[in-house]
Amino acid sequence: MEKVAERQLEKWVDHTRIYANNGKVADYIPALKRQNPEINAAAFLHLDGECVQAGEADYLFTIQSVSKVLALAVALMNHGEEAVFSRVGKEPTSDPFYSISKLEVEKPSKPINPMINAGALAVTNMMSGKTSDDMLQEILEFVHQLIADDTVDYDREVAKSEYDSAFLNRSLCYFMKQNGIITGSVEELLDVYTKQCAIQMNVKQLAKVAAVFANEGKDIETGEQVIPRHYARICNTFMGTCGMYNQSGSFAINVGIPAKSGVSGVIMGVVKDVGGVAVFGPALDNTGNSVVGVKLLEIMSRSYQWSIF
Amino acid sequence: MEKVAERQLEKWVDHTRIYANNGKVADYIPALKRQNPEINAAAFLHLDGECVQAGEADYLFTIQSVSKVLALAVALMNHGEEAVFSRVGKEPTSDPFYSISKLEVEKPSKPINPMINAGALAVTNMMSGKTSDDMLQEILEFVHQLIADDTVDYDREVAKSEYDSAFLNRSLCYFMKQNGIITGSVEELLDVYTKQCAIQMNVKQLAKVAAVFANEGKDIETGEQVIPRHYARICNTFMGTCGMYNQSGSFAINVGIPAKSGVSGVIMGVVKDVGGVAVFGPALDNTGNSVVGVKLLEIMSRSYQWSIF
Amino acid sequence: MEKVAERQLEKWVDHTRIYANNGKVADYIPALKRQNPEINAAAFLHLDGECVQAGEADYLFTIQSVSKVLALAVALMNHGEEAVFSRVGKEPTSDPFYSISKLEVEKPSKPINPMINAGALAVTNMMSGKTSDDMLQEILEFVHQLIADDTVDYDREVAKSEYDSAFLNRSLCYFMKQNGIITGSVEELLDVYTKQCAIQMNVKQLAKVAAVFANEGKDIETGEQVIPRHYARICNTFMGTCGMYNQSGSFAINVGIPAKSGVSGVIMGVVKDVGGVAVFGPALDNTGNSVVGVKLLEIMSRSYQWSIF
Amino acid sequence: MEKVAERQLEKWVDHTRIYANNGKVADYIPALKRQNPEINAAAFLHLDGECVQAGEADYLFTIQSVSKVLALAVALMNHGEEAVFSRVGKEPTSDPFYSISKLEVEKPSKPINPMINAGALAVTNMMSGKTSDDMLQEILEFVHQLIADDTVDYDREVAKSEYDSAFLNRSLCYFMKQNGIITGSVEELLDVYTKQCAIQMNVKQLAKVAAVFANEGKDIETGEQVIPRHYARICNTFMGTCGMYNQSGSFAINVGIPAKSGVSGVIMGVVKDVGGVAVFGPALDNTGNSVVGVKLLEIMSRSYQWSIF
Repeated sequence: MEKVAERQLEKWVDHTRIYANNGKVADYIPALKRQNPEINAAAFLHLDGECVQAGEADYLFTIQSVSKVLALAVALMNHGEEAVFSRVGKEPTSDPFYSISKLEVEKPSKPINPMINAGALAVTNMMSGKTSDDMLQEILEFVHQLIADDTVDYDREVAKSEYDSAFLNRSLCYFMKQNGIITGSVEELLDVYTKQCAIQMNVKQLAKVAAVFANEGKDIETGEQVIPRHYARICNTFMGTCGMYNQSGSFAINVGIPAKSGVSGVIMGVVKDVGGVAVFGPALDNTGNSVVGVKLLEIMSRSYQWSIF
Repeated sequence: MEKVAERQLEKWVDHTRIYANNGKVADYIPALKRQNPEINAAAFLHLDGECVQAGEADYLFTIQSVSKVLALAVALMNHGEEAVFSRVGKEPTSDPFYSISKLEVEKPSKPINPMINAGALAVTNMMSGKTSDDMLQEILEFVHQLIADDTVDYDREVAKSEYDSAFLNRSLCYFMKQNGIITGSVEELLDVYTKQCAIQMNVKQLAKVAAVFANEGKDIETGEQVIPRHYARICNTFMGTCGMYNQSGSFAINVGIPAKSGVSGVIMGVVKDVGGVAVFGPALDNTGNSVVGVKLLEIMSRSYQWSIF
Repeated sequence: MEKVAERQLEKWVDHTRIYANNGKVADYIPALKRQNPEINAAAFLHLDGECVQAGEADYLFTIQSVSKVLALAVALMNHGEEAVFSRVGKEPTSDPFYSISKLEVEKPSKPINPMINAGALAVTNMMSGKTSDDMLQEILEFVHQLIADDTVDYDREVAKSEYDSAFLNRSLCYFMKQNGIITGSVEELLDVYTKQCAIQMNVKQLAKVAAVFANEGKDIETGEQVIPRHYARICNTFMGTCGMYNQSGSFAINVGIPAKSGVSGVIMGVVKDVGGVAVFGPALDNTGNSVVGVKLLEIMSRSYQWSIF
Repeated sequence: MEKVAERQLEKWVDHTRIYANNGKVADYIPALKRQNPEINAAAFLHLDGECVQAGEADYLFTIQSVSKVLALAVALMNHGEEAVFSRVGKEPTSDPFYSISKLEVEKPSKPINPMINAGALAVTNMMSGKTSDDMLQEILEFVHQLIADDTVDYDREVAKSEYDSAFLNRSLCYFMKQNGIITGSVEELLDVYTKQCAIQMNVKQLAKVAAVFANEGKDIETGEQVIPRHYARICNTFMGTCGMYNQSGSFAINVGIPAKSGVSGVIMGVVKDVGGVAVFGPALDNTGNSVVGVKLLEIMSRSYQWSIF
């Protein structure tokens, strides 16, 4: 498959910058509101190790919902497929990611999948650490291992801001606690969850994370199986069927690669056997996805024939 | 209208005791689980001051959801009809009292009525006190005034037990806080709410409360307007259309008086211009109403032609 | 209780006419759209036989949803309480009258009450006639008996117009047929249903119907028990808890009498032991109730202390 | 990629036959109930034209919901992407395929995707023919073209049986007619729809259909673009995200190819750039998918590394 060329990527990043006008920076988390909508960055890491980048490729953003994929991988490695899916479902949904009503209507009460908030909270509840610090550490160490970089940390201010305003996630947690889906302290769980969402990376680092998923769970340099192949595939599948909030179906048609977005404006994409991609642009469409990011991935996918469909 | 005769009431209380076998003591609140299902008590206070009673009439129970009516009366007196109903609706519902999904589905998000948990929590949030102690005091003082008895207090153990296990009510509160229906500290609100639910009375005391509602808000001895007439009517209406959980419609057909039940096994009933009634029996049917209590009120209503329909 | 005075009623009818500006004539049934919004009529029939009237008291309107109460009475007389309520529930609901989703979500699938469309269709399905003509005849004969007037008939044009545009009711019927709640031909059922809704009366005739319900099911002239007392009470109860679409709760607070409205702009009200009332004004509020009618009943209820609460 | 070997396929078909015991032949359509649960058949058509088959490969079944994909392709070719998706959504859903409640809850009312019944009915409503015969002919001719075989027809008995018992689909149609999603005669639409579902093929024929989708819309022999490439991709995407009823997510994990199942027990699968597969076995799991078919595809996908994730 044709490789991504840096000069071409730069042109696309320049060209798509203007689409930010069609979106709006997330305002429901106070600390995110301050992001500059004009930032636009992209990086692609080929499985042969060549990395191309464009725009503000060193800009650090919080990964937000992208962390749902990482926590899922850790939970699968901790407990295995059967245990994880006894507490969270596997089906995509057209409901918004923050929705609670299915938890009440469906019997047994179980989050529909690990990419909506309820499901992601249930997954983070499966970290093996006893304290919230241990649980967070588990996720951070997994990230450090994935990208061979111990410096990745989380943004304290964003984490605190999200924690303080996480009323909806609290509501989901207490509802699930009532129904035995999550156990232990809700406040500690939210502490871990808001911190995992506040993990900071730039597009180059995140492209490296994506590359592991594109490489069937193996480190692209050492070849080490960092994530068992079947678990990497499970993560890719969820990104493919429900990674882009309730625009996942339309994204699958227009882009056609497994991807996960976050409300900071980030999207991580997996191009199987080719490489990992990360794009960033804080202006969001009304489903919570980066307008510029979606546009950029559409262009790249069409140009390089990435669609799996 | 014919007066309730004590010997007759005793016979009925004896006769209905056996219906407790058709129900089950509430087990979702640990401290309620221990109640003796064989207790059966009833009291009727005529507006002329004559009180008749039968069974364990001195037995103290917690009033639970009956407190929803009392808090509503206080909120109406604090803020007026318009302000109260800007935050909670007026319509009956067939949904269970603990349901959350309508809060998500309906726009604007607003509890359907003050007799379901979401609505009652929004109402308690309207107490004028600044601290949770002040807010509780406000409700207790209202009760003291209604029955001219300062000794009424709440059961610490039941309150704590409910507070510790109030995951569903926490979920409702945080959902409403997200949507601006309630303000301030959720934990303080739950503290007040679980304490108001744990207020202890016997059937004689509760019949006195009911008598004020049957007397258009006036103290039956002094004639003082303790609750403005229109507000007393509003409370009676909610008891008439949605006071008996999601058995309110069938209770309206079979009994036909405004009434409010609580999961301790209590039912307070209002016989307009005649008197107030309270019955108690902890075994509940599957909608959360006292089996014996409903049976007893059916017999009384048919015998004395109480139905308003 | 004070009697309704004709001169007073005339003043009120004049005075409330202007409220029609706050509403809108029903437009979803083509034949109703043509009604003159300025018509305003009221009649009250005292149980002693004295009838007072005001406004266009001879104007013929179609009774629409008021027929739900009449069909319910017939079904109860045909099959008894147990059989009827095995196919339709007893609980009020905050859902709109045309709603279908509860039929899918609830198990077993059963309309919530006989005052919403789904429930009313299930009730009409219980007419004992074999053909749709026989079924309609059964309802018409019941009306003739109630008001001792064989001339009451249905409006062919309105019936046809409703039948032709009854897509939502068809949808409800087929859903219920799938779930075994209704049996036989859906088209014949809709034929009967749209004709029963198109039964024509003026306010004087409808006040006579209401008077029977106010008189515990007895003809006010002959004293004959036209509707068994318990069944009359059941009908009154449904009117009290869910007769005014999803404004039933607020109507219960502001007016406080059992009443049933129809989208033609009619409201029938039951003042127990006093008399029957009918008001008409085609401009509707957004819940489907006559704006002028509700206003008029509020004034009458406050003046004459009709509220049952 | 390794080719499918006929002897291997025969072994697998033999080996999986026993899984039929875990399922149940569809009984909601009378004519399907009679299918022999022991039939098991599979065919794979490589893009180079080599066809391998096993089991009862000449057995004719009705394609049922597989026709949803074919009608979607025709509708896209008739009206283009924008017009089609103005009437039906693109998002996967965890709701069952026959569900109606989202049509009521969501505004605007629009079926979630073309693979659930509501969406498929809206799609069939977009055939360009004026009469139901013309509309059906359009779909049949498309099939004839896809597999270069004019003999394919529909099963009259199954079509009639489905038409007569299609109460739920009628309910969906009338609901959508009310909301302007479908136009014209509901009965004619159901006539076409039940006939398209009753189109008969054997696994060899259906594998040929699948091969066109695997070949980016091109005929594998002539290379002719039978379906425009982008539309073929849209169809593949829907099969990938929501083709297996509400087991689509779990099928994506375990098998990972775009596929569409039908309640007759058929599954059509698309292996991009490799070939088309069809399996048949009438015993269904509780989501409506062939138990044996799913098992067989799992084995094949693992052996030949088909997963797109």
